[in-house]
Amino acid sequence: MPFAPFDWIDDEARRRADAGLVRTLRPRPAEPELLDLASNDYLGLTRHPEVTAAAAGAARRWGAGATGSRLVTGSTALHAELERELADFCGFEAALVLSSGYAANLAALTALTGRGSLIVSDAGNHASIVDGCRLSRAETAVVPHADPDAVRKVLHAHGGRALAVTDSVFSVDGDAAPLPELADACRTEGAALLVDDAHGLGVLGEGGRGALAAAGLAGGEGIVTTLTLSKSLGSQGGAVLGPARVIEHLVNTARTFIFDTGLAPAAAGAALGSLRLIRREPERADRARAVATALYEQLTEAGLTAVRPDAAVVSVRAPSADAAVRWAADCRAEGIAVGCFRPPSVPDGVSRLRLTARADLTQEQIATAVAVVRRTAPVS
Amino acid sequence: MPFAPFDWIDDEARRRADAGLVRTLRPRPAEPELLDLASNDYLGLTRHPEVTAAAAGAARRWGAGATGSRLVTGSTALHAELERELADFCGFEAALVLSSGYAANLAALTALTGRGSLIVSDAGNHASIVDGCRLSRAETAVVPHADPDAVRKVLHAHGGRALAVTDSVFSVDGDAAPLPELADACRTEGAALLVDDAHGLGVLGEGGRGALAAAGLAGGEGIVTTLTLSKSLGSQGGAVLGPARVIEHLVNTARTFIFDTGLAPAAAGAALGSLRLIRREPERADRARAVATALYEQLTEAGLTAVRPDAAVVSVRAPSADAAVRWAADCRAEGIAVGCFRPPSVPDGVSRLRLTARADLTQEQIATAVAVVRRTAPVS
Repeated sequence: MPFAPFDWIDDEARRRADAGLVRTLRPRPAEPELLDLASNDYLGLTRHPEVTAAAAGAARRWGAGATGSRLVTGSTALHAELERELADFCGFEAALVLSSGYAANLAALTALTGRGSLIVSDAGNHASIVDGCRLSRAETAVVPHADPDAVRKVLHAHGGRALAVTDSVFSVDGDAAPLPELADACRTEGAALLVDDAHGLGVLGEGGRGALAAAGLAGGEGIVTTLTLSKSLGSQGGAVLGPARVIEHLVNTARTFIFDTGLAPAAAGAALGSLRLIRREPERADRARAVATALYEQLTEAGLTAVRPDAAVVSVRAPSADAAVRWAADCRAEGIAVGCFRPPSVPDGVSRLRLTARADLTQEQIATAVAVVRRTAPVS
Repeated sequence: MPFAPFDWIDDEARRRADAGLVRTLRPRPAEPELLDLASNDYLGLTRHPEVTAAAAGAARRWGAGATGSRLVTGSTALHAELERELADFCGFEAALVLSSGYAANLAALTALTGRGSLIVSDAGNHASIVDGCRLSRAETAVVPHADPDAVRKVLHAHGGRALAVTDSVFSVDGDAAPLPELADACRTEGAALLVDDAHGLGVLGEGGRGALAAAGLAGGEGIVTTLTLSKSLGSQGGAVLGPARVIEHLVNTARTFIFDTGLAPAAAGAALGSLRLIRREPERADRARAVATALYEQLTEAGLTAVRPDAAVVSVRAPSADAAVRWAADCRAEGIAVGCFRPPSVPDGVSRLRLTARADLTQEQIATAVAVVRRTAPVS
């Protein structure tokens, strides 16, 4: 038998090619060539001179890396400052910064559940939540999308230690979770509520304080939230926010915190720079939402099937994965970058274009983008 | 019933306190106050002006964040450049950069195994490998530490698709895996070999090309390696290196790659800066190993029980977790930062001081560190 332990990979590659589902990396140049409606840079901050200066300054002052686990040499005063300001801005007692939102979800889910406990997870939750449930060894009940009654029923039937988990804004369709109803179900049933506010921070709530602040739930006894520093804050990293005892528990038990190198100072510095900028310019959050609404209304007027956005993500249905790929490529050819979501990245198998509103898009840019998306739309 | 879904956390905190196993964060200032023998900055590059300038320059040129998944807007020409140079330096066909070494191990393990396949994992492997095994849904056989015969037997009994996984240098004791014997067992049994070279890159092999290059295994048909950019390269992030078809497979299927924001440009830039510096100054790898050997020899002469280092990590046994914590604190009080590893971060329950050799430590600094470690040693 010849030694070929990876030959099965070629078979899978062929199957993907036959199904039109091949993904390739398309590195972009330093100077943007396309009008960006694909990134998660909702507030237009990632290239803001104040934010890039904060990143550069932090690298020069603190070094290019954190040099170790946060528990050994990887905690700097900069990390502590970012954690204090994040918690304060979003209205939570304490915060813990990790190297990604993915790591933050794995940390919160594994440390706050475990064998014998129950996780109730929305069917539309992000991959990092799904993986956190798998890693946790808890029993996981997946409930229908945005269905607080289903959550309540499952919690009630369980009785023991439990946690419900949901995205605040679902990344594929841009719709919001029914947070007040979910919190009520959890409160009644004695369960914790974990909310991934990756797409809410910076966009929802007063001045962008996030979905929990918007719902009046920030800082609640049984409420924990995870964030990314890589979307509205234009940087990299993730965070868990909650009661101080929850954060101390994560420091002591969350494997993706303990056994990972701390977030690079440049990323911590950039996130802190963005946070201070957002405090000074709270209108950016309103602008991002207004741009999303304008995109949705103009796309709908143009006859396309879009989902009314609850935050800054606007989803437009495509007839097939192939059609979505061609559509996005045609937009790109006309100077507009849009996202293209298709299996296996969509929970329902429906392919979409995914447009993201940026606070700094002008009326003219919005009109141009809509015109291009309309002109290149597949005939259905 | 009062609403208190996190009260169980207080019980766990009490149990930790009773066992002397409480961990707290100790943020450090920008200017180092201690002589660092605790970080993983093996080549002393994280504060090197060329490396911090590369980080700062990348943030200014490319923005503070990657702005999205590598498959949407998160791939820049800088990422592609780093991937080409990493693969070339370490002798592999292709590379893929992720936001952490943790994410890289989760990506490789989940994408290259799966239900129905077998993973054979060394009992001393890093937490990120253990979590990758759990996430993969493959059957995992944990074999005794550094035991290629055990690996061979388990592989032989299985017969189907299989992968053996090991750290190249184990992070707790600093000992090296028997890579040639493991590769031989995998070759004979038709299995793939995944090696986490987090602690080997920059330290082992000619000019720091890593453990696989040192063993003549780099670029082999069935060989995949994971790296961190956060240790010898002084930055943040991780990478998977292997045959091009393996890397394409990861781009298409690895959830911690697909559903994560791309690595921040500053981190990619810093890693690239370090890589170029190491190519120009290949003697740094030899220095790091020589410093480790000197530390080991002087500690042993001083009557302490240390493990002979195969790379840049020197482990010194402590009589108990409590004693290890006090010992590390006493070293800190005398100006020396050393790592302190204790349960649950040690696979065998034995607490240790963990000293890391840096290429830029002087003979005098080594002597000072050894004197302090000796003077503060617990009476056993």
